[in-house]
Amino acid sequence: MYSVSSNISEASRPFLTWQRIIDWSQEHYRVRSFAKDEKIPARPGLLYLVQRGAVRLVGSAQVNATSIAARTVNVTPEEAFLGFVGAGQPFEIVAQSPFTLQSYAHVDQTSVLWMYWHDLDNWPHFRREVLDAFRYQHQRKLLWLSTLGQRRTIDRLLGFLTLLIEEFGEPSENGYCLPFPLTHAQIGSAIGSTRVTVTRLMGKLRQKGMICTQGDNLICIPTDSVLSKG
Amino acid sequence: MYSVSSNISEASRPFLTWQRIIDWSQEHYRVRSFAKDEKIPARPGLLYLVQRGAVRLVGSAQVNATSIAARTVNVTPEEAFLGFVGAGQPFEIVAQSPFTLQSYAHVDQTSVLWMYWHDLDNWPHFRREVLDAFRYQHQRKLLWLSTLGQRRTIDRLLGFLTLLIEEFGEPSENGYCLPFPLTHAQIGSAIGSTRVTVTRLMGKLRQKGMICTQGDNLICIPTDSVLSKG
Repeated sequence: MYSVSSNISEASRPFLTWQRIIDWSQEHYRVRSFAKDEKIPARPGLLYLVQRGAVRLVGSAQVNATSIAARTVNVTPEEAFLGFVGAGQPFEIVAQSPFTLQSYAHVDQTSVLWMYWHDLDNWPHFRREVLDAFRYQHQRKLLWLSTLGQRRTIDRLLGFLTLLIEEFGEPSENGYCLPFPLTHAQIGSAIGSTRVTVTRLMGKLRQKGMICTQGDNLICIPTDSVLSKG
Repeated sequence: MYSVSSNISEASRPFLTWQRIIDWSQEHYRVRSFAKDEKIPARPGLLYLVQRGAVRLVGSAQVNATSIAARTVNVTPEEAFLGFVGAGQPFEIVAQSPFTLQSYAHVDQTSVLWMYWHDLDNWPHFRREVLDAFRYQHQRKLLWLSTLGQRRTIDRLLGFLTLLIEEFGEPSENGYCLPFPLTHAQIGSAIGSTRVTVTRLMGKLRQKGMICTQGDNLICIPTDSVLSKG
């Protein structure tokens, strides 16, 4: 499991030179804290690193099959939840039509630092770690696409939750739990469904004992469920 | 547009040291040709490069919301089309539950070479290009996830086709066309829908002039359509 808790020990940081990077970003005023759901103004060509908290990636469609109508009535574009970037992980936003990507702080006090790619010339080993992290994220997204190809919404929902908790979940008395809340609307936006349908299907999965919730509406997968059968 | 045609000029190869890598792989018997739809036996820990043709990535779910029933009756797992890897591009398969990834030759005479990651120690510059290619592929998959979050199947379908053709399309008299066929079942498996629904919605998009087909059932996006409005 990939932990995103803020009190991760230095030894388990994905990046060995992490402390030096943090010092550098503070010296150069390249670090900033964000409140929950605040937009992180990420620009193409820059590399971002999550120092603390978690970042939520969101995509929105600029075109759809009825785009002309949608444009004239000024409909809000559909936003899709694309995943989290946890502490110690890099992200980047490359502007590309016909979709745009955005990043938001998912929890309070999310701290992000940034640099140009050529700043990494000073830290070739660190650059490789960043690139390996993107390689890892790419593999995760392929698994994510695997579940989104499933026809039944309940299968997409369970696959999606399983992958998220496999990556970000933390052990608890109820199994493995997501360390931060995720709304049913956000889940729906990831799996091509609606808030209402997600709420209904989450109820079904809970009845079957395939998921449970804990405390402040955190989603968990019981230890004896799918994760442990992998 | 990223071309995957086999007669790409050497100058436009994504990798500068490409010819040296090809020579090396032939000397070390690390290259093999595959027939259309033949499975490429890719193993975790190895890096694969498409020399010619195109590779199709496929994911399959090992669990779903009714997995116990599915196991007993030995149902074929749902396979999802996860995209192409074109000539000059790298891919890797990292085994991860609860989904598995597989690779197939998408066209005849697809040629693939492979190496261990440590083989790249001899070519540090090339390693960086490979890692940058994965970074690029990751960004493309985020866009792909953006369209799969759309609620209406016709929007997911149009977004999916637009992204594929933006990346792999080649100019033709009808606009930009995918250089190889893709079945409606394969499209359905990518967007969480069925062959029947895809066929119906493709008809709708064709009627609206948002897509067209050419020759051997190749899917095209007319030049005056979404791609050029990006």
